[in-house]
Amino acid sequence: MVAGKVDTGVKDDARSKNALKKEAKDAAKLAKKQAAQEAQGKPDEADSAEDHSKGKYGKLEMNASQNKVQRELKRVSDIDTSFANKSVLIRARLHTSRAKGKQCFVVFRQGRSTIQGILTVGDIVSKQMLKFVANISKESIVDVIGKIQNVPNPIESCTQSDVELVCEEVWIVSEAEPRLPLLIDDASRPDSETGEDGLSKVNQETKLDNRFLDLRTPTNQAIYRVEAAVCRFFREALDKQGFVEIHTPKIIPAASEGGANVFKVSYFKTSAYLAQSPQLYKQMAIASDFEKVYTVGAVFRAEDSNTHRHLTEFVGLDLEMSFDSHYHEVMDTIGNMFTEIFKGLKNNYTKEIEQVRKQFPSEEFAFLEPPLKLQFPQAVKMLRDVGIEMGDEDDLSTPNEKLLGRLVKAKYGTDFYMLDKYPLAVRPFYTMPDPKDPKYSNSYDMFMRGEEILSGAQRIHDSAFLTERAKHHGIDLETIKSYIDAFKYGCPPHAGGGIGMERVTMLYLGLDNIRKTSMFPRDPKRLTP
Amino acid sequence: MVAGKVDTGVKDDARSKNALKKEAKDAAKLAKKQAAQEAQGKPDEADSAEDHSKGKYGKLEMNASQNKVQRELKRVSDIDTSFANKSVLIRARLHTSRAKGKQCFVVFRQGRSTIQGILTVGDIVSKQMLKFVANISKESIVDVIGKIQNVPNPIESCTQSDVELVCEEVWIVSEAEPRLPLLIDDASRPDSETGEDGLSKVNQETKLDNRFLDLRTPTNQAIYRVEAAVCRFFREALDKQGFVEIHTPKIIPAASEGGANVFKVSYFKTSAYLAQSPQLYKQMAIASDFEKVYTVGAVFRAEDSNTHRHLTEFVGLDLEMSFDSHYHEVMDTIGNMFTEIFKGLKNNYTKEIEQVRKQFPSEEFAFLEPPLKLQFPQAVKMLRDVGIEMGDEDDLSTPNEKLLGRLVKAKYGTDFYMLDKYPLAVRPFYTMPDPKDPKYSNSYDMFMRGEEILSGAQRIHDSAFLTERAKHHGIDLETIKSYIDAFKYGCPPHAGGGIGMERVTMLYLGLDNIRKTSMFPRDPKRLTP
Repeated sequence: MVAGKVDTGVKDDARSKNALKKEAKDAAKLAKKQAAQEAQGKPDEADSAEDHSKGKYGKLEMNASQNKVQRELKRVSDIDTSFANKSVLIRARLHTSRAKGKQCFVVFRQGRSTIQGILTVGDIVSKQMLKFVANISKESIVDVIGKIQNVPNPIESCTQSDVELVCEEVWIVSEAEPRLPLLIDDASRPDSETGEDGLSKVNQETKLDNRFLDLRTPTNQAIYRVEAAVCRFFREALDKQGFVEIHTPKIIPAASEGGANVFKVSYFKTSAYLAQSPQLYKQMAIASDFEKVYTVGAVFRAEDSNTHRHLTEFVGLDLEMSFDSHYHEVMDTIGNMFTEIFKGLKNNYTKEIEQVRKQFPSEEFAFLEPPLKLQFPQAVKMLRDVGIEMGDEDDLSTPNEKLLGRLVKAKYGTDFYMLDKYPLAVRPFYTMPDPKDPKYSNSYDMFMRGEEILSGAQRIHDSAFLTERAKHHGIDLETIKSYIDAFKYGCPPHAGGGIGMERVTMLYLGLDNIRKTSMFPRDPKRLTP
Repeated sequence: MVAGKVDTGVKDDARSKNALKKEAKDAAKLAKKQAAQEAQGKPDEADSAEDHSKGKYGKLEMNASQNKVQRELKRVSDIDTSFANKSVLIRARLHTSRAKGKQCFVVFRQGRSTIQGILTVGDIVSKQMLKFVANISKESIVDVIGKIQNVPNPIESCTQSDVELVCEEVWIVSEAEPRLPLLIDDASRPDSETGEDGLSKVNQETKLDNRFLDLRTPTNQAIYRVEAAVCRFFREALDKQGFVEIHTPKIIPAASEGGANVFKVSYFKTSAYLAQSPQLYKQMAIASDFEKVYTVGAVFRAEDSNTHRHLTEFVGLDLEMSFDSHYHEVMDTIGNMFTEIFKGLKNNYTKEIEQVRKQFPSEEFAFLEPPLKLQFPQAVKMLRDVGIEMGDEDDLSTPNEKLLGRLVKAKYGTDFYMLDKYPLAVRPFYTMPDPKDPKYSNSYDMFMRGEEILSGAQRIHDSAFLTERAKHHGIDLETIKSYIDAFKYGCPPHAGGGIGMERVTMLYLGLDNIRKTSMFPRDPKRLTP
């Protein structure tokens, strides 16, 4: 442990002593192995020479917290020319390595950042050490001590392109098996670079089957940080408005919305179901005077839909809010919350968004402040104007939604808009009808890049009217008794909505498949890992 | 609409016109009803007299967002003597009312706050209006316009004790059925005031059966705001440290921890299970270079445990973190996070905590900074010193945990502590053994008021050693293949833990049952509402 007295913070403490002991043991093992190789008639000039790098490389004993070490690991992303001539200690993956005569070039990767390491046989690096490093399997985690030096020409293949790390010690912390199910570089490649020119592409199933590897790609490192930010900005925007976070049960006694598309669970001696939404519970919270609530949690849909945007389990960002006079108070709160999410991402996640675009090109997400609000009949007119035939009370088909998104983008320049006043006939029984025109309802969807990401409405808060509407829909009142009961003892007018987290992330980033924004996706055909 | 020109912000806009029209209609209905009553030989002097309050009271049409109104609803909690002689508009529940001759006293409740309203027959209030208000069913939601006046003697029964609201208009927004399944006052009463002296108590089952009413108690309004804060402080403390929030699937292909206590789900043509913890997935995220992750979500345990602290579905606050040299890096991060939660609650939720104590008395939660860390053998010694017999490698029984909590509190003055170095034999197969003494392990539990709220450990990150330990535990390797595979391609040493959100809230507030901190609890006998 020579290097790093100043910058790495490595001290001659227990760890160093232990490491040395360990290294000695490793070196002995290595010597034994080499002896065995020689006995097999494979003598190696380098191996048989005296190794002056002994104690500077090797495989560390499995970390079982043998010792506490006070030292400072540097972040690869922080290393730039200001580190020139300084010693650093990093822990990173060996991304790739390439030995060439007396030199070995290594790319070390840490999250989205990479730095080039270099070893040259000489005073510090022995032939044996070079060989050892050149043979470390890709994806192994290593501790590296070395000096940072500026490079004359930028290293295009690394994020830290102005510097390289002259390696003085290289220790394997955790060794990867040599045969990887997929290569990080292959999984990170834009489609435009794969195919005919011979560079391989990893298909989605292979990626998902080996998700713990696939998630290491710089793209995925960025995507899931953006997704975490979507949730954080969602909560922060609502916390500021006095919303209370609640948690609703996923195991429910009855299939509330008609019984279709519900997963059944064995529950001790009876059966139960997985909640398709927290609807009932967030409305109960409103009937219980919490006034403004949100909940983030798993939502289950037993739909046999194998599309780019359906999952059987996804994360719902749900909210519900009582209002004074008009449900637009709620709609505007939701719209402004989306604006805060979009602004938060745009202002704080530029690097992550750019990272994703390198693999999956997309246009910048456009939004207006305040957000655009259209009425359903306006949308129908826009579609009819371009030749689409649809009735006043027809729902929007998926292709029409997408087309409408393009028309709205062309006319208003926004990728996000809210569509108000859906036909009553296409909404659930608990939707409040429009008081002026019974064909319509106080309900809305919200869209990103032409795809629905929120569905919401003013809910009927009057138990008698709710009963009437449920009957009209042919719903067995017995199955929704506790839902209706919740409105019998005074409930303020309220509205809300449910957002699909994965869809928001997918569409904000302009991705083509929801499996790219669900860390461990579930669909009718995928239940693993 | 006379009052409130200055302070309520009520304008002569659409709402007022509409309200007047509506009121006229209501008044006509009322007149008809009165006429009917008179025809039945029940003439009422008050009813037959001319009603000079007409248009000042009544039941509003169901709000279907007929009109947008620009007006300002005041918060009851904000109203104090500074409002004296000002007009205000509030929306609140009619908590109780008591008519006495020509006067009617009403308590209006909004969340945890209450204010006394008063109506006196005279220029503003007609006999008919007084009667109308006196007959409004408890828990109905009303809009009230009136003037605030100071009171000579504090009104002990209301939170806004220095003022009262002289009502000028009272409109029912949402009417409660007259027979309530439970009374909010009964459900809010401390145990010490119920029983022999005749005041009724509502038992837990009745409360939970009518949760949408029970949650309206000031105690519950406070508890669930504290619980939301526990989650928020948890996330904030970790966000500051660079943790990434992730979401893990609840539907999993195999019962990872041995198959016992797992709920089975029908999944299309196959079967699946509900995750008992996000363990596998947060460890995969670590193997995927996310370094520090947390997740908040539902966790399922099919245990037939009917105790004060077990639920079949609860909210897990889970975290996992890679470390440099020693798992105490993680343990200290968790310990400090708890300190931040405790400080956050103490500094920002005094009112809520006091509110809960009115019904459920408890001592203030004591904690040290930095938190106390004890070693398992120390705990065994403390217990043996008071006569408990237990082996070195025995787990702590629940009574012993509680006793230990009392001993620790007496000796160190803290209700929170961390217990390190559990015997290896009592921990799961993936727990890293202590490198110095194979009887122990690099694992820990954390306690609040003598009850476990977190269990955690350094995990084995080496696939070969993990396989060896799984075999030792007699686990079918096929069932944990994908778990073991995740560690084959390089994984940093890491540790983590899982926290029960409801337990943290329960124990911080000194409550006696976890059903008091789960909004809609699930246990072997309860699946509703």
